[in-house]
Amino acid sequence: MKFISFRVKGQETYGVYDEKEELVWDLLALAGEQLPNTLIEAIDKVEDLPSVAAKWVEEAGIDAAITASDIEWLAPIPRPSKNVMCIGKNYRDHAIEMGGEESIPTDLMVFTKAPTAVIGCQDSIPAYSNLTEALDYEGELGVIIGKRGKEIKKEDALDYIFGYTIINDVTARDIQKRHKQFFLGKSLDGTCPMGPWIVSADEIKDPHQLNIETKVNGETRQQSNTKYFIFPIDEIISTLSKGMTLEPGDVIATGTPAGVGFGMNPPKLLKSGDTVEITIEKVGTLKNNVR
Amino acid sequence: MKFISFRVKGQETYGVYDEKEELVWDLLALAGEQLPNTLIEAIDKVEDLPSVAAKWVEEAGIDAAITASDIEWLAPIPRPSKNVMCIGKNYRDHAIEMGGEESIPTDLMVFTKAPTAVIGCQDSIPAYSNLTEALDYEGELGVIIGKRGKEIKKEDALDYIFGYTIINDVTARDIQKRHKQFFLGKSLDGTCPMGPWIVSADEIKDPHQLNIETKVNGETRQQSNTKYFIFPIDEIISTLSKGMTLEPGDVIATGTPAGVGFGMNPPKLLKSGDTVEITIEKVGTLKNNVR
Repeated sequence: MKFISFRVKGQETYGVYDEKEELVWDLLALAGEQLPNTLIEAIDKVEDLPSVAAKWVEEAGIDAAITASDIEWLAPIPRPSKNVMCIGKNYRDHAIEMGGEESIPTDLMVFTKAPTAVIGCQDSIPAYSNLTEALDYEGELGVIIGKRGKEIKKEDALDYIFGYTIINDVTARDIQKRHKQFFLGKSLDGTCPMGPWIVSADEIKDPHQLNIETKVNGETRQQSNTKYFIFPIDEIISTLSKGMTLEPGDVIATGTPAGVGFGMNPPKLLKSGDTVEITIEKVGTLKNNVR
Repeated sequence: MKFISFRVKGQETYGVYDEKEELVWDLLALAGEQLPNTLIEAIDKVEDLPSVAAKWVEEAGIDAAITASDIEWLAPIPRPSKNVMCIGKNYRDHAIEMGGEESIPTDLMVFTKAPTAVIGCQDSIPAYSNLTEALDYEGELGVIIGKRGKEIKKEDALDYIFGYTIINDVTARDIQKRHKQFFLGKSLDGTCPMGPWIVSADEIKDPHQLNIETKVNGETRQQSNTKYFIFPIDEIISTLSKGMTLEPGDVIATGTPAGVGFGMNPPKLLKSGDTVEITIEKVGTLKNNVR
């Protein structure tokens, strides 16, 4: 099931998307006060949200659906309640393109993006030509945490996932480098495109067998598979939760494969007018313009 | 004026603290629905909160005050709406103790602490003896942002400050080092003691002339003055807001001076039973036990 956040008639709401029919069910309109106000709260408060949502959609039927073209798409989690947690260098070939063999990490590397950076699939990535000469894309599988947990064992970790989305971890390489710690170069407003939806975890039995591809202006730049993760998702969740509580709606970006613009010779960085399109098998396609 | 968040009779609220008389005025009890539910929202929504609060307190008088011993103290911003933004190596002598002359930064270094790490002045810092062998203290001046802004000019930056607090940027040195980027070693639950209050900006004309001292079990470990900042607060705010929106209630930890336990020979790290006490001139004292 695909969960989305969106605006309709000026009101922010959330619901379920049928990709084939291009139809949307507004869960707040259907269930009213029986559901919390935002998707992040619903993930937190509603036990087995996919089943509950399926029941509301089935009872409402097709007559209650909205045409997808009538909504304004938001990121599925438009405002995470903390910074997006990002795994650095989680594909061997990307670590090598960024700094050679010695930059392959032996331990999880985690940095964050400010929640103010998050945008949806209909928003543009600002070019920031006044601030950076090296704006770059990073296509990544996003993991949405479904329930609170700490000291989560690897064997239990996948039970803590609500679903999966796509994240473009847009990075200002020069700012990232200049300030040593990655936060500033990763947190410009609009540099965390997320979406278009969250696919609930029940639809992806194995998140480590997904093709991932990034195209810029139609040209394939990144092409890999999540089976090449250095640190698989269960290990990421287990390591993050050692001493740190994970919460429903937390967003984890799992790292990007080789093929970022900065790693090319000569570098192929983003400029105004470019289109970045990230496709992840069984999840979907996230497409944003740079402007 | 000193603003606090606290719990009284099980209810979370916020108010004004008179340190001399040890009295608290519960602003929500006094003003009810005329004020938002949390201090972070009040900072956002109420124009000139110190004046508004002063009026409520004056009208209520001393009979409406609560004895400070009757409240449960929380961090003034118990749950920041994003990660706490921390400036790395902002005192020259601390940069040198951590890595010699070459580790003095030429550009602002910014990392973050998860909001789940925040605790108040009555809470204990967990010792995490199962996770780290190198838990360390870092006494820091905290800046609380008062209004939304982006591309803030240095000369306007201080206008964006609501007030000042004290932060102990507790750090697991081994985790910090192992994972390269600082986030994990900085984000264990309970490793961001903050408080006891926010002193409103009007009471501190010059935040760059404040003595800062950290004691462990009564022994002075850090002793410096904010005049030794490599990057002053106006520059921090200006640099952070280049492309990234700052929001009311955002918390910035401005960096720690020399004298952290890890920098000593031999290192003097924190263990269960220790008490860490940070005093900043014109702000106050933040004291927490390690357990």
